[in-house]
Amino acid sequence: MPPTLTAFKASPDRGRGLARDMRVRWAFEEVGQPYEVRLVTFAQMKAPAHLALHPFGQIPTYEEGDLAIFECGAMVLHVAERHAGLLPDEANARARAISWIFAALSTLEPPITEWEISRFTERDKSWFGERLAAVEDRIRTRLGQLSSRLGDADWLDGDFSAGDLMMVSVLQRLGGSSLVAEHPNLAAYVARAQARPAYRRAFEAQYAVFLAASKG
Amino acid sequence: MPPTLTAFKASPDRGRGLARDMRVRWAFEEVGQPYEVRLVTFAQMKAPAHLALHPFGQIPTYEEGDLAIFECGAMVLHVAERHAGLLPDEANARARAISWIFAALSTLEPPITEWEISRFTERDKSWFGERLAAVEDRIRTRLGQLSSRLGDADWLDGDFSAGDLMMVSVLQRLGGSSLVAEHPNLAAYVARAQARPAYRRAFEAQYAVFLAASKG
Repeated sequence: MPPTLTAFKASPDRGRGLARDMRVRWAFEEVGQPYEVRLVTFAQMKAPAHLALHPFGQIPTYEEGDLAIFECGAMVLHVAERHAGLLPDEANARARAISWIFAALSTLEPPITEWEISRFTERDKSWFGERLAAVEDRIRTRLGQLSSRLGDADWLDGDFSAGDLMMVSVLQRLGGSSLVAEHPNLAAYVARAQARPAYRRAFEAQYAVFLAASKG
Repeated sequence: MPPTLTAFKASPDRGRGLARDMRVRWAFEEVGQPYEVRLVTFAQMKAPAHLALHPFGQIPTYEEGDLAIFECGAMVLHVAERHAGLLPDEANARARAISWIFAALSTLEPPITEWEISRFTERDKSWFGERLAAVEDRIRTRLGQLSSRLGDADWLDGDFSAGDLMMVSVLQRLGGSSLVAEHPNLAAYVARAQARPAYRRAFEAQYAVFLAASKG
């Protein structure tokens, strides 16, 4: 039986591929692992059955036989460790690729999430502009450092890895802003990842959920 | 040759064990792995030699022979995978413990870091109180969910694991605030972890650095 993910029945990102199930769908597609998806409403996410799978009431969750895990980082690592294609074979290169998974989630994503929360919850405050500028400064510092490290390489460390998958998944949350575009090498890096057939398949699969929900 | 960490020569937390090298020191102590520490100044952290080890100019870094990695999550996982004592042997339990490492870093730590940044950079703003309350609400939601999941268990999932190590490391950043104390089971969980001999040894080692720096 293939693994089952949960995903939003009605994703707040309107099918832009920003919800965290997209990261795991993409990992499955990169390694050629079929998977199933169970859609959940916001009410279902807060109900005991879902909280048993995910203590923080979020998506995605991952179920496979007797195994149930949460956190997209843990899922991508789990998939990458069990299938060829997302981590190098050589032990040191593998450890470095795993560093990049953590860097995406622990160093890049937190200020980007803060930027999203500020734009969503603080827009009507008199101090919104001042605060957003401060958050954008923090993001710019990280993007500048990432751009310096990437240089003119295609990927962060050798071949495409789960570290790149997670980093691009995080960067694309900056969406229509110009923050990524300020670094042409980062913009090209994101575009290069998004052009991968596995990314396209995962994107289309989550977009189909949005289309079905909006017809509903 | 034992692995070498970098740590702050003069930690901004004044020896309270909140800097991220503490998490890796603790992991080393739990598994009985000797390690060395190289202290770095803030200027050294921004210089090319350190940026080659850590693209974002932070501590800790981890060097062992030809291997160099960054991100404390990657380091704790690396140590836990190579030594007994921090991850269960059974595959499913192991994957769940790894979920908790990611939960600590991706779900709990971001709003806690935001709380620290707000208290450090926004204290003189007219809107500080309003904003801090909003961040504390986000933290309270997560702590409530964590408290519900922990219940009256000693640890998050079976025996003490790298997931508990990381979760407690994150929770203790809330320090003197009452946020953790609002949940007696979480306060007891943090105290239980901090009473472990391995925690004490790691704490004393980083505190000795602070004492030496403050005498300098």
